[in-house]
Amino acid sequence: MITILGIAAGSVSGVMEARRKNMDIVGACVVAFVTALGGGTLRDMLLGNLPVFWIKEQQYALMALGFAVLVFYSSRLLMLSHRSILIPDALGLGFFSVLGATIALQLHATLFVASLMGVVTGVFGGILRDVLCNEIPNVFARNTTLYATCSFVGAWVYLLATSLGIGQEGASLAGMLVAIGLRLFAVRYDLRLPEPYDVFD
Amino acid sequence: MITILGIAAGSVSGVMEARRKNMDIVGACVVAFVTALGGGTLRDMLLGNLPVFWIKEQQYALMALGFAVLVFYSSRLLMLSHRSILIPDALGLGFFSVLGATIALQLHATLFVASLMGVVTGVFGGILRDVLCNEIPNVFARNTTLYATCSFVGAWVYLLATSLGIGQEGASLAGMLVAIGLRLFAVRYDLRLPEPYDVFD
Amino acid sequence: MITILGIAAGSVSGVMEARRKNMDIVGACVVAFVTALGGGTLRDMLLGNLPVFWIKEQQYALMALGFAVLVFYSSRLLMLSHRSILIPDALGLGFFSVLGATIALQLHATLFVASLMGVVTGVFGGILRDVLCNEIPNVFARNTTLYATCSFVGAWVYLLATSLGIGQEGASLAGMLVAIGLRLFAVRYDLRLPEPYDVFD
Repeated sequence: MITILGIAAGSVSGVMEARRKNMDIVGACVVAFVTALGGGTLRDMLLGNLPVFWIKEQQYALMALGFAVLVFYSSRLLMLSHRSILIPDALGLGFFSVLGATIALQLHATLFVASLMGVVTGVFGGILRDVLCNEIPNVFARNTTLYATCSFVGAWVYLLATSLGIGQEGASLAGMLVAIGLRLFAVRYDLRLPEPYDVFD
Repeated sequence: MITILGIAAGSVSGVMEARRKNMDIVGACVVAFVTALGGGTLRDMLLGNLPVFWIKEQQYALMALGFAVLVFYSSRLLMLSHRSILIPDALGLGFFSVLGATIALQLHATLFVASLMGVVTGVFGGILRDVLCNEIPNVFARNTTLYATCSFVGAWVYLLATSLGIGQEGASLAGMLVAIGLRLFAVRYDLRLPEPYDVFD
Repeated sequence: MITILGIAAGSVSGVMEARRKNMDIVGACVVAFVTALGGGTLRDMLLGNLPVFWIKEQQYALMALGFAVLVFYSSRLLMLSHRSILIPDALGLGFFSVLGATIALQLHATLFVASLMGVVTGVFGGILRDVLCNEIPNVFARNTTLYATCSFVGAWVYLLATSLGIGQEGASLAGMLVAIGLRLFAVRYDLRLPEPYDVFD
């Protein structure tokens, strides 16, 4: 269920960006696909977990494309503001971050690498979206609220919890809740990362 | 033979774009290589069919680079307009789309995934070219005639034909002819995809 | 030791570019990581040498991120001009080019493919950095001094030396010295690649 919400949020954000760039339905589908599934795809390619997940389980690819077509041709759904995908997006961020770390651990990665795979899974879809749309990735900008950080912290909460012997379910839940909570908190209170001490450019 | 034409078309289109961006021969070679072979490379990386095809069969890499050097340093060849690569490009699109779907089937992908691999093989070279050249991918733009669509339709014609028990050769030919025909028809009659019903941006 | 210098050079150049684009620490870390380790990552993904090297040996990932954080928050280190990373960057270029060719040979690639893997390892980190920063890759520009060429020539010196029966150590050293020497020579004497014979754009 939360997977569906996460894929939907990625897909919708991809279509929104595609519409802003005046793309047709092909562009919208590719950008939506890459936003929704690109992070997990890169994770699988780095880990050698091949073929990538949406080739093994095609329902994810179908979902991403289905949402893209639906939203692209439905003006009412497009009225969705960025605000309205905030919560599904935060849920997806939390879920995919923990999922990425989990898959990495199953493939015997170290904790540190698993935390990176969590961030890749949670965040790289949006980075690839912005690269395809010819923008500097949004999550890299100084004026954005915490995003990758929530993914990183959530992944570490999950990893430390499993290391401490807490079961898979409890650890996953803890990691997800921390990532999601931190993300919503960051948006609400406009939290950003510390700037470099002196900016001379 | 048709492989050579397809690679040549990709390589030439890469060099043209590189020249327009004022790149040197290194840029021209990389962009030409990526345009000609990038789609198949991404397909192999997604499917786990590694090392990628041009590492197993280096003649494709040699061809892509050879064409690039030749065209870059030959002003006469550069007089080639976009018009003149239209037909080799359409042949390449049809051939690579069916080839991508065929390879995916051999690796036991589902029909739907195989159709996506056809599109990736046929179309992603051009997308990666535009990303490297710092442009929004051309195939995503609203004012372009059908391109990815031809690849998708051709791949499905091939896939349905093989599912119906038509032999590999017949099915391949059918898929290629449909993709190529549809592409040339789209250019001739300026066919585009339906716009969203109301555009308010 | 030379690995550390090479990773440091990549990481610093990534942070510099990230600062110029007004990115926060997340952007700086991702861009630094991709610049320092992206070439080797792409090589491993193309060759099917998976998981990629920094997942097997996480100290490289830790180094790249450590340097990035250090440099991003330290204004004194940022005073480093492009000039000051010239020598570590040249050392890294030579080392990674020979390393890429060596790994490819171990995986039974042909000499030509191994030379391409040398260039990918040496040069693609910088290309991916520029793509992430929404710039046309610097090494593609006409006004840049020899860079990919040094990588290519160094890789071939190494490959021909091993083919001639010179031992791994001697061949590596020869390849590296040629690549590094050619790079420093090119910067000193402003060497560029030949332009196309007539430029009409």
